Amino acid sequence: MSKKITKRSEDFSKWYNDIILHADLAENSGVRGCMVIKPYGFAIWEEMKAVLDRMFKDTGHVNAYFPLFIPKSFFTKEANHVDGFAKECAVVTHYRLKSGDAGEIIVDQDAKLEEELIVRPTSETIIWDTYKRWIKSYRDLPLLINQWANVVRWEMRTRLFLRTSEFLWQEGHTAHATEKEAIDETKKILFIYKQFIENTLCVPVLHGLKTDSEKFAGAEKTYCVEALMQDGKALQAGTSHFLGQNFAKAFDVKFANKEGNLEHVWASSWGVSTRLMGALVMTHSDDNGLVLPPNLAPFQVVLIPIYHNQEEYDKVTSCLKDIGNDLRQNNIRVKEDFRDTHKPGWKFSEYEVKGVPIRITIGPRDLQNQTVELCRRDTLTKENILLKNITNIVFDMLEQIQIDMLEKAKDFKNKNTFIVDEFDDFAEKINAGGFVLAHWDGSPETEEAIKKQTKATIRCVPIDIEHESGKCIFSGNPSLQRVVFAKSY
Amino acid sequence: MSKKITKRSEDFSKWYNDIILHADLAENSGVRGCMVIKPYGFAIWEEMKAVLDRMFKDTGHVNAYFPLFIPKSFFTKEANHVDGFAKECAVVTHYRLKSGDAGEIIVDQDAKLEEELIVRPTSETIIWDTYKRWIKSYRDLPLLINQWANVVRWEMRTRLFLRTSEFLWQEGHTAHATEKEAIDETKKILFIYKQFIENTLCVPVLHGLKTDSEKFAGAEKTYCVEALMQDGKALQAGTSHFLGQNFAKAFDVKFANKEGNLEHVWASSWGVSTRLMGALVMTHSDDNGLVLPPNLAPFQVVLIPIYHNQEEYDKVTSCLKDIGNDLRQNNIRVKEDFRDTHKPGWKFSEYEVKGVPIRITIGPRDLQNQTVELCRRDTLTKENILLKNITNIVFDMLEQIQIDMLEKAKDFKNKNTFIVDEFDDFAEKINAGGFVLAHWDGSPETEEAIKKQTKATIRCVPIDIEHESGKCIFSGNPSLQRVVFAKSY
Repeated sequence: MSKKITKRSEDFSKWYNDIILHADLAENSGVRGCMVIKPYGFAIWEEMKAVLDRMFKDTGHVNAYFPLFIPKSFFTKEANHVDGFAKECAVVTHYRLKSGDAGEIIVDQDAKLEEELIVRPTSETIIWDTYKRWIKSYRDLPLLINQWANVVRWEMRTRLFLRTSEFLWQEGHTAHATEKEAIDETKKILFIYKQFIENTLCVPVLHGLKTDSEKFAGAEKTYCVEALMQDGKALQAGTSHFLGQNFAKAFDVKFANKEGNLEHVWASSWGVSTRLMGALVMTHSDDNGLVLPPNLAPFQVVLIPIYHNQEEYDKVTSCLKDIGNDLRQNNIRVKEDFRDTHKPGWKFSEYEVKGVPIRITIGPRDLQNQTVELCRRDTLTKENILLKNITNIVFDMLEQIQIDMLEKAKDFKNKNTFIVDEFDDFAEKINAGGFVLAHWDGSPETEEAIKKQTKATIRCVPIDIEHESGKCIFSGNPSLQRVVFAKSY
Repeated sequence: MSKKITKRSEDFSKWYNDIILHADLAENSGVRGCMVIKPYGFAIWEEMKAVLDRMFKDTGHVNAYFPLFIPKSFFTKEANHVDGFAKECAVVTHYRLKSGDAGEIIVDQDAKLEEELIVRPTSETIIWDTYKRWIKSYRDLPLLINQWANVVRWEMRTRLFLRTSEFLWQEGHTAHATEKEAIDETKKILFIYKQFIENTLCVPVLHGLKTDSEKFAGAEKTYCVEALMQDGKALQAGTSHFLGQNFAKAFDVKFANKEGNLEHVWASSWGVSTRLMGALVMTHSDDNGLVLPPNLAPFQVVLIPIYHNQEEYDKVTSCLKDIGNDLRQNNIRVKEDFRDTHKPGWKFSEYEVKGVPIRITIGPRDLQNQTVELCRRDTLTKENILLKNITNIVFDMLEQIQIDMLEKAKDFKNKNTFIVDEFDDFAEKINAGGFVLAHWDGSPETEEAIKKQTKATIRCVPIDIEHESGKCIFSGNPSLQRVVFAKSY
């Protein structure tokens, strides 16, 4: 009604933006490249945080907090890392403002920092500078620490949630006595991400390894989970890095092993960010607005009364209140919208745009029949059910929606995953959108040439699969396995 | 044993620092003025956050997230605000680094920002710039928003938790249609803070108004809660500001009232920070280390086995495991320290320093007698109880400790609160430490003169009390009520 959403088929990018704005998830701020996450969007992010934080803690991780600022010199300690991260970042050079001659506010040039501070784009360097103090002996290991934080990577072209100069994320940083332990940790987190994104966000993901050209600056190996958006583009949803001994060597972090000999520590780091909000929106939303998985919905059910006069209003809302209390007692998150200032039609549209999984309405006739109308947001189907069965039915329906949304997304992903052996076919499929499994000869030159010609990047090299040898789609050289290509965000 | 803590009586400030370091709460980082909050300290902060967040949500507040950076020009819009906050702050001037001629990393002078960005010292300006877009009509009000965030105020002399350049906090920012509503909100939050700090941290607080010279830059009125530390100094534990229409006017935020007329919006803002960690430490700790209220303790009970050989170890730990499971089923947070690498004495000392409320030990003889030894951290008393009663006794003891800790702290506060009418006595009491209730003539000149002579500031002007007229302790001029003086952090 009130808020017009561009159709996906017309302009996917504009559609995405419309959903974010009209569902009140986020908006651009007065600071270039930085977004404001609005209360409704933030409530979804809080649910994500709660679930993931629990998964981390259940696997022995603890939270801590490290400084926002990183001295410039820290970055130079790990050669690859500085190449990857010291480029586009916010640099603090002064620590004071003062009044100028005309009373305006200017930077006080006397308050120049001796060494510039970088607003963290990621925290490996400041954390490994800290771990040097914490790790002395094998008894101090493993160290399994996570941080929820804001980070800044200067971006020229920004998109809400997908690419913003400041974003929120969690970053895990672990230290281990052996290479095997660090690799096991890296993989354990990869599977926590996969499980979380599939079961909580209902977004199916492929998992695998990044190629050398796509891996994290400073990592030995980068594992990733990749999702497929409705426009056929891939989105990197999370990464888990095996860092080898790179940061331990850069920051001279050694531990005494059981024999008393000093060894460098092994490490992992891993993160997911508010980018997941973008994945959520682009996987499930439709032309009517956002569609939320029940597990993440700030309210899972909205209650809306239909009435023509005060007497009807009183009766209908009294009945809805009872329903609300009953649902809440079953740990269902309920929103009652009994406002007299807005018409039911306006409310229907509002909560449809906001993606609330189930809408319950009662009008005077329903009251007579002792029925209610349930509307499922994901399917937009309606049904009338008996009032007395409501709590059980809602409870089951929420579970079913969670299952169905993942199935629907899996279906989409499967239908848009192609096995291809000819380059013409490859280029066509890439152009149309989807995951394309093709053979690659393993050389960065071929990878680069394919990217140049088709805009496709290797999203991941699948692991845990049976190898199947073949010929590279581009060079014709021998290949040991298919890798996943796609255009991406 | 292992970690030597300075005695309070010898050097309070060093004692404080020793507790923070030895209890693994926090430490200084490689970045001047910024701290690392260690996992154990962060777990306590997380508990605080969880309780307070629940209280905010239960009173209708929602969370959101606003940008870290604030354009310089935003600060100049509210005249008092800029005076208070634009002084010592981190200024971002550039957005790129590059490699210099010698391969070193330097700031790219070509990447200079047109307008400098300030790392938020507080978010009124960026938030009111946003509210301008969100508020059009009385239907959009009230807006009750909170943010959990990091903020930066450049500090030359820093102390862990009490004064650091970066700290964590929550900041609430609300918008209302009427002055009364905004004042009610300001006071509502003040009482939420009081209730939270007393019932969760077991830290008794006075509440009242700040004088004009001590109020928030940009506020009409600043309400505060003030706690008394063991050295007799006051610590401001939280503030809640009635902002009037100052920010609405500065950012031109108006709403159409029910009659369709445009009016400026009324506002409040309020915050507590990781400073509360300092209040917690300085209120309860003793010469043996930290003492934690059970409601905030990351683990409320630690289980330690005593044994001489493997057989005893197996029996004793098996019994402790059963206890642990039973306690956990009653939602008690339990740490089992069954490590064979550390002796019981070392563990006793470790968890004493860390302030774990209850220690449970079992040795072979206890097993024979079917008893366990309980040790209360707050009183350092031990008792032997029958194994079969353990869960109920622990449950009750945790509740009792929470009550007793607040009572003990109240007792200290009461014993160190003085009503004084002569200036000599005043100066002496201020010097010795404590809250001193004395008459003040209400003038900033007197306030300043007292501060200069005695280092005492007016911590708050009590509200909700019966007024009692008298003569100013300093000037002899008439006074309408006593105010609270103290030296402070």
